[in-house]
Amino acid sequence: MASVPPDAASLDVVGIGNAIVDVLSHTDDAFLIERGLAKGAMTLIDAEAADRLYACVGPAVECSGGSAANTMAGIASLGGTGAYIGKVKDDQLGRVFRRDIHVVGVAFDTPPAADGPSTARCLVLVTPDALRTLQTYLGASAELGPEDIDPATIGRARITYLEGYLWDPPRAKEAFLKAARIAHEAGRKVALTLSDPLCVERHRAEFVDLVNHHVDILFANEAEITSLYQVADFESALRQVRGRCEIAALTRSEKGSVVLSAEEFHVLEAEPVEAVVDTTGAGDLYAAGFLYGLTHGHDLATSGRMGGIAAAEVIGHIGARPETPLAALVKKKLG
Amino acid sequence: MASVPPDAASLDVVGIGNAIVDVLSHTDDAFLIERGLAKGAMTLIDAEAADRLYACVGPAVECSGGSAANTMAGIASLGGTGAYIGKVKDDQLGRVFRRDIHVVGVAFDTPPAADGPSTARCLVLVTPDALRTLQTYLGASAELGPEDIDPATIGRARITYLEGYLWDPPRAKEAFLKAARIAHEAGRKVALTLSDPLCVERHRAEFVDLVNHHVDILFANEAEITSLYQVADFESALRQVRGRCEIAALTRSEKGSVVLSAEEFHVLEAEPVEAVVDTTGAGDLYAAGFLYGLTHGHDLATSGRMGGIAAAEVIGHIGARPETPLAALVKKKLG
Repeated sequence: MASVPPDAASLDVVGIGNAIVDVLSHTDDAFLIERGLAKGAMTLIDAEAADRLYACVGPAVECSGGSAANTMAGIASLGGTGAYIGKVKDDQLGRVFRRDIHVVGVAFDTPPAADGPSTARCLVLVTPDALRTLQTYLGASAELGPEDIDPATIGRARITYLEGYLWDPPRAKEAFLKAARIAHEAGRKVALTLSDPLCVERHRAEFVDLVNHHVDILFANEAEITSLYQVADFESALRQVRGRCEIAALTRSEKGSVVLSAEEFHVLEAEPVEAVVDTTGAGDLYAAGFLYGLTHGHDLATSGRMGGIAAAEVIGHIGARPETPLAALVKKKLG
Repeated sequence: MASVPPDAASLDVVGIGNAIVDVLSHTDDAFLIERGLAKGAMTLIDAEAADRLYACVGPAVECSGGSAANTMAGIASLGGTGAYIGKVKDDQLGRVFRRDIHVVGVAFDTPPAADGPSTARCLVLVTPDALRTLQTYLGASAELGPEDIDPATIGRARITYLEGYLWDPPRAKEAFLKAARIAHEAGRKVALTLSDPLCVERHRAEFVDLVNHHVDILFANEAEITSLYQVADFESALRQVRGRCEIAALTRSEKGSVVLSAEEFHVLEAEPVEAVVDTTGAGDLYAAGFLYGLTHGHDLATSGRMGGIAAAEVIGHIGARPETPLAALVKKKLG
């Protein structure tokens, strides 16, 4: 198979993930080292640790984040149709999250939690090398459960896109598996991003099983895919993943990406970027471009290039969602 | 007088203003024209209009704002000491505001409102020409009253800095006059920014009286000072303002600034800027640099240059508070 053909589905993609508001601030390596924070990765922290860290990071800006939510915002910016499933609380930051995803045209109807922990926050610490270190307090997002998976929404979407981060909160995993089952029963495709190397560490065996049995389209970066198969290099990981799912789209930062299926293998160069300001959202936006391409009749190589273009936009500025309409950008680059 | 000499005061500046969280988003002229919004100015809107507008602006980021609060953050970034007086509600955005001003080292002890309207929000619409159009819902910030003015804090500060925007909410004006009186009784200086041309329109007669009788150091841009004296050009405004207050620091965007007192007159060029991204906070940061200079024994011309350097930093990126430590920047530029 080369691409997901247009059919009667009324949505291109439904994304399911942890609904999070990002708190972005600039920092330096010394700050990370002093506090023993895992640079470049996502670490889960509790409310108390989040408050403690928040109190000592520098001037910050808040903006909606969440990996799959960023991807959905990217798909909408490309002109695609999408829905999002995730849990916020009915508080100010929850309303900010809801507004930001609605305003770009993504349907988001998961009922907010009326009480319990506050809307999830991710402290995004951007170092001068533009790398980001994520410290996440899952809060209300961890309340997502199978009851939040609307079968009609999943059935209407060509692709159901799931973030590996969902394996962290206890009940989201059930939601995840329910969504995958409904999607496949409706003849739809299931896509997964491995999300983060530490997330792969935490859930390796289950992720290997998922990829073998439940996932049609896999997204991972080099660190994630080599960790998944516990191999030393990218080439070994490629041999491992081939044939295990229909399509794998593997990103390699400035080295571009590799897209492969049973019959195809494409090595794609990275899009040129003037200045890398903040890599937050690079993987999320690559997935956005790729899924948009796939659901709009483009071949694997073109879909991969769309992913690269979307990723290049988002790393050129602070924040994990596009600032420039991606549809126009892709048109300019691909004609 | 040339500068405010260091004395026993333990604070350089106390700023009093509307405590506001900014919601920044990119837009275009068509959006402003369609909705009849006054480009480049600050307009007050009610909660309903704020919600309506918020629902249709594009992807947004939230960050702490408020004119005088931005100035205080700038003074702290320059290495100065300061306090801030303003009213937030005890809600999520109120806590964001409090955190952001505390984290840069500015004292902020005004008790938050326990109930009533939510923390103030300003929708900052940035057009491709980098100009910003402000639509402000005053919310809890309008609850500031004379009871929030702590005489000890005012008495400890060399300069009490007030924003003209305080003339808008009903009781802040009383707070403003109380602070000015206490400052003068303690032998301190009072500084005022005219804030905005539309704000000058709303309160012209009272502002003229203020400048004549209560203000030692006046900040205004070209549009504000010509509006204040209802004159056609900047030169006429200069003739009007001279002698009415001790020092006037008048900004002119890319044309730099003019600083004058009874004995001095300095025309200062604008600092070179690589790319103007967002002019939000330019005036606030000019005031920060100028007040820092004045309270650290620098002459008027050097203080004006410090203002220009701080303003140039803030217009080079999105948001109204410095991203680069200003103390290092000033040291590099002025040696």
